[in-house]
Amino acid sequence: MNTVRAIEWREGKVRFLDQTRLPLEEVYVETDDEAVVAQAIKSLAIRGAPLIGIAAAYGFVLAFNKLQSNDGRTIVAWIEKSTSLFSSTRPTAANLFWAINRMRHAVIDVAGTPLDEMKARALAEAQAMHKEDEEMCRAIGQLGSELLPPAASVLTHCNTGSLATGGTGTAQSIIATAWEQLKLRHVYIDETRPLLQGSRLTAWELEKLQIPFTLITDNTAGFVMQRGMVNVVVVGADRITLNGDVANKVGTYGLAVLAKYHGIPFYVAAPTSTIDFEMTSGKEIPIEQRSSSEVTQLAGRQIAPPDVDAYAPAFDITPNELVAAIITEKGVLRSPFRMAMEMLMKKDLSSMVRKAVFR
Amino acid sequence: MNTVRAIEWREGKVRFLDQTRLPLEEVYVETDDEAVVAQAIKSLAIRGAPLIGIAAAYGFVLAFNKLQSNDGRTIVAWIEKSTSLFSSTRPTAANLFWAINRMRHAVIDVAGTPLDEMKARALAEAQAMHKEDEEMCRAIGQLGSELLPPAASVLTHCNTGSLATGGTGTAQSIIATAWEQLKLRHVYIDETRPLLQGSRLTAWELEKLQIPFTLITDNTAGFVMQRGMVNVVVVGADRITLNGDVANKVGTYGLAVLAKYHGIPFYVAAPTSTIDFEMTSGKEIPIEQRSSSEVTQLAGRQIAPPDVDAYAPAFDITPNELVAAIITEKGVLRSPFRMAMEMLMKKDLSSMVRKAVFR
Repeated sequence: MNTVRAIEWREGKVRFLDQTRLPLEEVYVETDDEAVVAQAIKSLAIRGAPLIGIAAAYGFVLAFNKLQSNDGRTIVAWIEKSTSLFSSTRPTAANLFWAINRMRHAVIDVAGTPLDEMKARALAEAQAMHKEDEEMCRAIGQLGSELLPPAASVLTHCNTGSLATGGTGTAQSIIATAWEQLKLRHVYIDETRPLLQGSRLTAWELEKLQIPFTLITDNTAGFVMQRGMVNVVVVGADRITLNGDVANKVGTYGLAVLAKYHGIPFYVAAPTSTIDFEMTSGKEIPIEQRSSSEVTQLAGRQIAPPDVDAYAPAFDITPNELVAAIITEKGVLRSPFRMAMEMLMKKDLSSMVRKAVFR
Repeated sequence: MNTVRAIEWREGKVRFLDQTRLPLEEVYVETDDEAVVAQAIKSLAIRGAPLIGIAAAYGFVLAFNKLQSNDGRTIVAWIEKSTSLFSSTRPTAANLFWAINRMRHAVIDVAGTPLDEMKARALAEAQAMHKEDEEMCRAIGQLGSELLPPAASVLTHCNTGSLATGGTGTAQSIIATAWEQLKLRHVYIDETRPLLQGSRLTAWELEKLQIPFTLITDNTAGFVMQRGMVNVVVVGADRITLNGDVANKVGTYGLAVLAKYHGIPFYVAAPTSTIDFEMTSGKEIPIEQRSSSEVTQLAGRQIAPPDVDAYAPAFDITPNELVAAIITEKGVLRSPFRMAMEMLMKKDLSSMVRKAVFR
């Protein structure tokens, strides 16, 4: 599969694709400055919940590489500074906080060892996360493809591909896997206003993968369902709570309601790092508000009267009762989600114990 | 009320606002060429089902004014040519065909009279239609305002105001009337992709009317309903069939499904000229397909990869079971719509009989 490398570690630097320039320009940025990476996350040059996590992890490594001393106080100050730098980029994606936390632990685990060793450990952890993400994409693609109806005609929203993850994607990995397995008939892509991740990014990726698709405006989704043009909806997620509520790109909730009305299954694909085991319901998820100008301007051009007030939540919450299943790399979760999540945690725990014993 | 004159008859010419230039430029076009009017309808410089009807009527007058002879054959040829010119502009709006038909009858009624008299009759008919449309807007505003819930927070789609009618609008007239009557709390406007009639036109009009509103992307509608930010949806219509099915700007159907799911009333506001008494169900309505490029380009800028295929129906069909009521200038129609339509026809008939008797 022709997979785009949205982010890479290259000889002490992070190289990433500036996604705000797509689809017209394919511009890569190479940097050893963690602030540049943080700003790229903020501006959506790097986006997609899993990819944000990987970017933050590499950003930690960049910061760490500047350390001159392994004095305990310096290390702690460095961890806190990096944590705050990356935590403040975007509030909704669970993977971001999961990745930050994991980097903190990795470094704390080897505190007191020589500086070079600590730096190597930090990089190894970030690279492991990146590699795991690739494997996660493959597993989700496989598990999800099995769930699709015959001759699947998939409706998807936003971008969940190589540009959103460290591998082939979440929802999009299911689409690509189904295509390889001759199970996919067609894909309908919501353009995904305001930032057009569907028309700019997903259309660009599916063209590269040579998967047949049709672009629609977000408000055409109901019509294509009514006309029987799609038989399944598959989307990604930015945060999933213990009860199975899903935060994802704004518009997802409307699709879920429409899918319900038309009796079409609505699937969410996400790695377990998207699950926030500390939140019991979607009501607790902080919803990032974007600037009015993302709605009232497009490509620098004013498309509404100046000074118009726009309400621009980046995400919405889909309640669990509209979700047919959550496809993770570790298995397919179904209602009642709370129980499924608990089983998932136990499974994780037992595999960790196994690892510890048989290491 | 500060009402924009989207179209006017001015000393033998039609003057119209080029709506494709809004909101950044307010450009008026004055012409005595019916082909310019037809092209303006096609390109959406003149749009909105009722306004299209009025524009076509004035277009007929422009064409008629060029006639040099009242010879029967010439008149018939002229009628057929004008009919075909305007019928081929846009396929979905019922008002267009209603207006064309009415102009044909008006002229046929006075066939054989001196040419100047016939020309005067044609103009009088077009002006009568324009005036009736103004009154229709007022009546719909009044009837609709009475239906709104207390402290109404209305969600609307596309543009249904002075830019879509010969008066204050359909759905928007309800909004404006409710505002004057202190019954309106707030308006949420869908931007209405792909041509942004919400953000370009409705936002521009509500600003002029000083009515408080917030602009949202179409895909945010579900979220604002879920959060209780709107308590009623009011939209216009391009064609309504005998069973109460409604063709309106694409996205309307999705809003109707969302409104149903949230228990929010969904109202359609339209003049009786929008009702197609010859069609029994929405399945028969021809849906205009717009060019892919209206989705893949914006303001001349490519926003998707070149050559991407987009599906761009201009309208969708909302089935009658999702419609709480249809607000016409002659009364409020409710389910079962078929019966309500028959009563409406009888009422019309009896008033026509009365007129004939007491003339």
